[in-house]
Order: sequence, then C-alpha cells, then structure tokens
Amino acid sequence: MSRAQGSGPLVIAVDCSTTAAKALVVNARGSVVGTGAQQLRTFSPGPHRFEQHAPDWWAATDGAVRTALSTTPDRSRVTAVCVTHQRESFVCLDGEGRPLRPAMLWMDGRAEAQAQRVGTQRVEQLSGKPADITPGLYKLAWLGEHEPATLAAARRVVDVHGYLVHAMTGRWVSSTSSVDPLALLDVSTGEYSEELLAVAGLTREQLPELVPSGTLLGPLRPDVAASWGLGAGVQVVAGLGDGQAAGLGLDVTDPTSAYLVMGTAVVIGSESTGYRPSRAYRSMVSAFPGHVTVETFNSAGTYLPTWFRREFGRPELHGSPDPELEEQAAAVAPGSDRLVTLPYWNAAQTPHWDGRASGLTVGWRGSHTRAHFYRSLLEGIAFELRLQLEGLEQARGEDVEVIRAMGGGARSALWTQILADVFARPIQVGASGEASALGAAAVALTATGSYDSLRAATHALARIDDTVKPGANTSRYADLLAVYRRLYAETRDVMHALHELTPRTERGTEEATHDEIRGRA
Amino acid sequence: MSRAQGSGPLVIAVDCSTTAAKALVVNARGSVVGTGAQQLRTFSPGPHRFEQHAPDWWAATDGAVRTALSTTPDRSRVTAVCVTHQRESFVCLDGEGRPLRPAMLWMDGRAEAQAQRVGTQRVEQLSGKPADITPGLYKLAWLGEHEPATLAAARRVVDVHGYLVHAMTGRWVSSTSSVDPLALLDVSTGEYSEELLAVAGLTREQLPELVPSGTLLGPLRPDVAASWGLGAGVQVVAGLGDGQAAGLGLDVTDPTSAYLVMGTAVVIGSESTGYRPSRAYRSMVSAFPGHVTVETFNSAGTYLPTWFRREFGRPELHGSPDPELEEQAAAVAPGSDRLVTLPYWNAAQTPHWDGRASGLTVGWRGSHTRAHFYRSLLEGIAFELRLQLEGLEQARGEDVEVIRAMGGGARSALWTQILADVFARPIQVGASGEASALGAAAVALTATGSYDSLRAATHALARIDDTVKPGANTSRYADLLAVYRRLYAETRDVMHALHELTPRTERGTEEATHDEIRGRA
Repeated sequence: MSRAQGSGPLVIAVDCSTTAAKALVVNARGSVVGTGAQQLRTFSPGPHRFEQHAPDWWAATDGAVRTALSTTPDRSRVTAVCVTHQRESFVCLDGEGRPLRPAMLWMDGRAEAQAQRVGTQRVEQLSGKPADITPGLYKLAWLGEHEPATLAAARRVVDVHGYLVHAMTGRWVSSTSSVDPLALLDVSTGEYSEELLAVAGLTREQLPELVPSGTLLGPLRPDVAASWGLGAGVQVVAGLGDGQAAGLGLDVTDPTSAYLVMGTAVVIGSESTGYRPSRAYRSMVSAFPGHVTVETFNSAGTYLPTWFRREFGRPELHGSPDPELEEQAAAVAPGSDRLVTLPYWNAAQTPHWDGRASGLTVGWRGSHTRAHFYRSLLEGIAFELRLQLEGLEQARGEDVEVIRAMGGGARSALWTQILADVFARPIQVGASGEASALGAAAVALTATGSYDSLRAATHALARIDDTVKPGANTSRYADLLAVYRRLYAETRDVMHALHELTPRTERGTEEATHDEIRGRA
Repeated sequence: MSRAQGSGPLVIAVDCSTTAAKALVVNARGSVVGTGAQQLRTFSPGPHRFEQHAPDWWAATDGAVRTALSTTPDRSRVTAVCVTHQRESFVCLDGEGRPLRPAMLWMDGRAEAQAQRVGTQRVEQLSGKPADITPGLYKLAWLGEHEPATLAAARRVVDVHGYLVHAMTGRWVSSTSSVDPLALLDVSTGEYSEELLAVAGLTREQLPELVPSGTLLGPLRPDVAASWGLGAGVQVVAGLGDGQAAGLGLDVTDPTSAYLVMGTAVVIGSESTGYRPSRAYRSMVSAFPGHVTVETFNSAGTYLPTWFRREFGRPELHGSPDPELEEQAAAVAPGSDRLVTLPYWNAAQTPHWDGRASGLTVGWRGSHTRAHFYRSLLEGIAFELRLQLEGLEQARGEDVEVIRAMGGGARSALWTQILADVFARPIQVGASGEASALGAAAVALTATGSYDSLRAATHALARIDDTVKPGANTSRYADLLAVYRRLYAETRDVMHALHELTPRTERGTEEATHDEIRGRA
C-alpha cells in the first residue's frame, strides 16, 4: 500500500487497542505508506471479567509493525515510533518484567463493590474520574482484597503504553496521558497522588516514571531496531491513550470542537481550559499543556447493534453489519414509531454511573418489526449521547460547535444521520478508522520536528470524509428526547429492584468473542 | 374421522371464531365423529381497525358443517345444532338482512375515545364491563358519530350468533349470553337496558329477541337441512360466546374452578354466584341461571410469541411455533436472567384498562439472547395472568382451586410449566383446542334431553389431557413477581407521555394477517 511516496521523514504510529494492534507508517503530510494489524485475544474467566496476556500486546505490536514496514518503500526514512492504546488496562509484573497474573482490561467489571466503597468524593475530585468499574484504581483495590500477594509481589504495575515502551526502550517510563486512566494521578498537577496510591495499595516505586506526551524517550533498543530492519537512532516518542489520540487525529484541540468515538463503547471528548471536576465527564491529562481533556462515556456503542445482529440477525453474518437491515431500519420512521430504548445493556455510565441500571425498551406495539427494534437501539444511543453532550457543555461552561465522529459506528450512514438529527448539529465524519493512530503520528511528527506545534500537526493530518447535516427529522427527535429525558429517573427504582434479585446463571466464557470486546475505536 | 361409533343422538357444535368456523359432530358421550373447518378473512381498513364480511360467517359455518357431516357415518342421527362464536363483534343489516357495512370485530380499536367519553361508572355498573374498546356499545357510539346514516338505516343490529341463527331458522333471535358482550344488557336482569340502548343510539326493535342459552329455537330451515343432507326436525339450540363455552368444555361450573383461554388473547374466567361488578373482571350472563360469569382479559396472548417468531424467528416458519426456539427458551433460567416484560403490545386491559399503555422490556444485558427475550414474553403474560387471577378472586370474594387451560398457548409445554410455577398451582390442560365447541355440544345435548342438567353434560364431555404441577422455580418466580407488581405503576406516566406523541406512520393493511387476528381460542 502506498498512497504517497516522497523523500521526507516517516513515523510509525501504533494503536494497540482492545481487539488488535494496528500500525501505520505515515509521512509528514499524514499520508499512510504502510499498514499492518494483528489481532489480540481477550479471555473472560468469569462473569464481567475480561483479561489479556500482556506479552500479547508486544507480540501483536511487533507483528503489526513488521507488516506495516514490509510494505513501506523506504524504511530508512523512519525517524520515530509512537504508541496510542486501550486505556485503564494494566498488568502487574515481577522483577524480570514477567506478568504475575493476566492483565485486567478497562471493561472488566469485577471492581463494582470497590468503586462504590473507596470511590469517595475526594477520590473522584483528585483523580478527575467518577467512581466506576473502569479506572484502574478500583481494580487495584480489588486485587488488594482478593489477590494481595500479587499486588505485594508486583515490582512494576504498568499501563499498556508503559509495557510497550519498556519492550522498545528497556525503560520503565510512560506518559502522564497514558497512565492517567489508572486514576492514580492528581489531574490538577499531572503527578502521582500519594492519597490515590494509598487507596490503590501501591507505592511510587512500583509505577513507571512520568513524562509528558510527546517527550523523546530515547532510541529503539538495537535488537528491536535490527529485527524491524531499521537503523540506529529511531526515537520512541511518549504517546497517549486512544481517546485523546482520536481527538488529535480529528483535529479537536480546543473547547469549540468535540470528538465522538463510535466504537464498542461511545465517547464524547473535548478540551477544557481549566480543571472543573464533574460527574458529567471524566477529566484527563491532555496532550496540550494547561488543558484538561473531558470525556463522557457509555459502554454500549457498536456493542449494542452488534449484539442485536448476533442475536436477531442473519446467522451467517455472525453479528457483522448487514446492509439489508440498515436499509430496513432506515425505512422506519424517526422515533421507531414510538419505541424508545435506554441503552444500558452494560449498565449506565456518564452521568448516572449506575452499575445497577440495565437496558429498557418501552412503547412496544404489535406493529413494531425487527427493524424498529434495531433502529430504536441506534436512536437510544444517540439520545444518551445528546444528554451527555449537554451535560459536558453545562459542567465545563463552554459550548461545542463542531462534532467530529470516527469509529465503526460512524461508518453507518443511518446512524450518523440519526446523530445529526438528534444533536440538531452537523456531524463531520472521519470514517477511516485511523484517527487514533493519526493522532499518535501527529505527536511523533511534532516531537521529531516536522511541525512547530502539535496543533499545526493535527490540523495538517486530520481527515474529514463527510459532513452529515441535521434533516427534517430534527423536530420529531426533539419531541422524543423530552420523553427520553424522563426515562432513567422514572425507571431507576425498578431497575435496581430487578438487579438486586440474585442472579442464577450468569457466567463467563473461556474466550470472549470479538463482538464482546471490539475495541473502543 | 371416527373416534367412536354408536347408535345414539349426534349434535353439531359450531365454533365461529375470529379466524375460522369449526364444526364438530359429537355423540352423547362427547366423542367427535366428524370435523370440519373453514377459514375466515379479516380486513384491516385502517390502524387498529378490524372488520369481516358477515356473509362470510355463514359461508364458513356452512362449509365447516358440510365437511364435518361428510365424514359422519350416520347423519340421520343428528338431532341439533348449537353455535358458539367470537364475542362483541356485530353487524348492521338492512330490511333484507344484508350488511349496511362490514362487521366490526371485538379487537377493533377505533372506539377508544368513545369508551373514555361515554363509558361512565353507571354504564360500567349496568353492563358489567369495564369501559374499553372491546364491548360493542362503544363501537355503536362510534358509528353514531361517524356513520350516523348506517345506524339509522339499520333494521337489525346482531351479534355473530344472531346472524347465524337467522341463517339457520329465519328468526331474529339470539341468546342473552351471546348478545351480552355488546354491553347493551343490564347484567343483573339479563334484559336489554333502555339506558344502555340510549348510549348506543339504538332502539329495542333493532335488536334480536333474547332467550336463555339452551333454548330450543325451532327446526333448521328446510332448505338448509336439505342442503346438509339432514331430515326435518333438527333443532337449533341457543348457544353462547366462545369464552363461556370454553368454560363449559372444561367443566368449569362453579367458583372453585377457572378456565384459562390461551388464545390470541388470554382470558381467565370463572363463575360467580352473585353480581359484583368490578374493574377486576368483566361480568357476563352465565349459562347457569343465577350465576354471573366473570372474566379477566389481556389482548396479548399467543399474539405475542407469534409476533416474536414472525419478527425474530426463522422466516420459513412464518411465525408458527418453533420447537427449536421452545427448547432454547426452556434452557434459559426462570426469570430470563432478570429480563422482565410487560406484555402490553395491544395496550393494557384487566385491571388497568389503559389504552395508552404499551409493551416494556427491562433488565437488558449483553448476556441476554434471543431465547431470553422469547422466554421473557411468555413469563410476562404469566405474571400478568397471575395478577389478574388475584384481582378476580379478591373482587369476587371466593378463591379458585383448579385452573383448566386450553387454546394454542396451552399446547406449549414450556408455557404451561411457567404458568404452573408463576401461579404456584397445578394447571390442568385440555389441549384438544375443542373446548368451546364441546361446550356448545354440552348445551345442545342438554337441550335435547341427553343429559338432565348442563352440569352433568359438561362433566361427561370435558377432556383433561395433562396436569402440570408447580416445580422448583416457584420461589424464584415469587421474587420476580414482586418486581413485576411495581412495573406498570412506575412506568405508566412515561408510557402515556410516549403514547401522546403524534404517531407518524401507523397504518392498516388491506388484509390482516392470520397472525394478527388468530381467534381467541
């Protein structure tokens, strides 16, 4: 693959997501000259538990980079490598860098009780993150209770970025933006918080050194460089998590724009010029000094239409997108003839942070078809995102003017139109699916001097493929939104009562399916 | 077909239901010696509107009887004909007995506004029927508003029984039990109520003469008798609606037992020794003098699993029962892993009588499968029926000891087990699907002297094929029922808000599918 040739520098951008490591070789104009990918396996050892083998992170990254370089015309031009990655996931290592247990993933739900117990207002305020199963802190607290020996024996506790940087440089160092999702940093200072470390049961020595995203971390280890067919002096550049990287890849650099990640989970992110902690978003260390990245989060994104297609779709498609179903759902009236869905199949996150919430569909009539149910899921997620955006704007104090979407869900013409209609704002779509990797490339190109500033780099690299404008259905959706707004508050009690009945048959599977764990982007 | 031969009298029992006319030729022991059936077409000229051509009632009855007699060894033994039928449906006729417009069916929903406006407490008290779209009274009020010329021109307004009796005898006469579902009778006296006739905009002269069920109405018209190959003197016996007839066919003759009709709609019926009007049931003229038949009603019975199989099932089955799906749903834990459904796909009837209610499913998790959704529908109907039975017992003041089920839904081993578990009582199953016709046969055999009393006849004729006992899941369902009890009250407001949004695309179909209108039994 070579969309562009030339003579300038090239950088390798790695996106080590939940489902795969993907590598792009990118030139200074952002053109992709080589690509590679290698799948990652996720294991589910019990209900709501999701783990990976950390050495697979490196094996998949290594494989993806080799493939990308094998199709790159002139690899001697490669000057740097930068990694973006799944966030919140971490691994405990012994003195030799070997895992003491499998890595626990962001979507692993086992720490619900810990989030409720130790996720105090003070912890939320320091970490900038509403207490929830997601941040690493609560899983570390779970380990302290259930596997204390592991935690005590851990010489290193590292995020995905820290693990890969060690593999590439031999150093135990990571970026503040990459470590931050563990919820061990004081977001107002960007430093480890002793209070949060105490809650996690960790000491400073177990954790990687912190540097800002964009820092040169030193050259690739000679053996790695040699095995990739690269010369000496290829720099490893400190990267950042895939959410913020997607923002960079979509040129979201100030509060007037927002990125919308339509992955397994859905995220709306934007920049804030000050730190205003709120349950309306999680606050994270930004790639821009002085900024805080704020993000809403709902764990059912493409997860939900994928679930539908797997359970109710054509079996031979195994849950993958079905153009015929999209067409049928597009023919259904907006509002799915008054069928409305709360998309809490994986509980509720921003702003309710309610692990006892569950999905709800109301308005069923005999005239509803399979396509109505499907459309209602897409609409439910759009309503939820609209409320999340409103909450973000209100808590941050500044409105968003431009929304830029990426991820698998953004490839659905139906869904992006629903989003534009429900948001009553245009949606710019970067459909390539490479936004996070392009964001990492922008960081690497800035760090190695191709651009004067990260803003200049993101502006040059961002790719918008399409703009979807709100249409005639906007007012119809406004009516439905008025009902949707009430739905959670009015059904919460009964959802909780249901949740509190003892479960009977839930269990994990030995290996999670890809549908279950498709990465956020 | 000849399950039994002999030399005694035979009677013809006709069940002219919503989907078909069925005819049985039955001997005095209740053995079926001949059967026939002919489908009926239902038309839907607009949303929630359902109509039939009254001449089809007679054509289908005639066809079914001819078929049944064609397989009957010795038709000279036939002594009587008795009709049971879909209730509440009626037709307006001119002076020649020709329809002035298509007949309006029990499930036609156009009179919702009339039910709300003229369905006063007084009207409910007199008619014994909670105001709802179902009773004929409100559709007559609708006609008075929207088609006043039709009502004024109508020389006769007759129920299905009255129409068929006229075809067979030339007389305009019907049974009190058959006319009663029109809600024009004072249930406490069994006579037409002048007050209710005024609400309906009818005069006494437009309506058939009333006689008790079991009255001999005279011989078959000679031309009809001849065309059926029968001799002179075959008596037409006044019948009754299919719900009460099912009760007779299941030997439900006093308050200690109840019939459970698992048809398109579901009904629980029992006898009451006094008239105690309540919104917990509809009160109807009983086949037993001095009794009132009380019945609960929910319009989504087999309608709902049929809807599911049509929308989410194997296309080649066109909504018909699927043993594989039943098996998958049977393997799901009781309570469908905390997925609970309010089965109001066709609004809510007993005891809420809420046309603005709609179906609701809560508890959705990613671990739920297609089979969970299906099971949750069966369970939702069972919960609803349990609450209806409790309400019936409480309002009537006497408990039910024995429940006898019939209809298409009673042929599902999974569903009857769920019912037994949710009711925490044994369910006796009469799976033949002939309970209503056997009830009509019992009436005919009593009227023509084969039995001394109707009770003796029903006792001899009733067929119980199986008894399903409550199992280990009973306590689990008790937990779930506690949540189910709250569900309607806590979600009613939001269902109403949703309903009050203007519909956009609802429309009727030129011909209703059989799935939509499969008869009650």
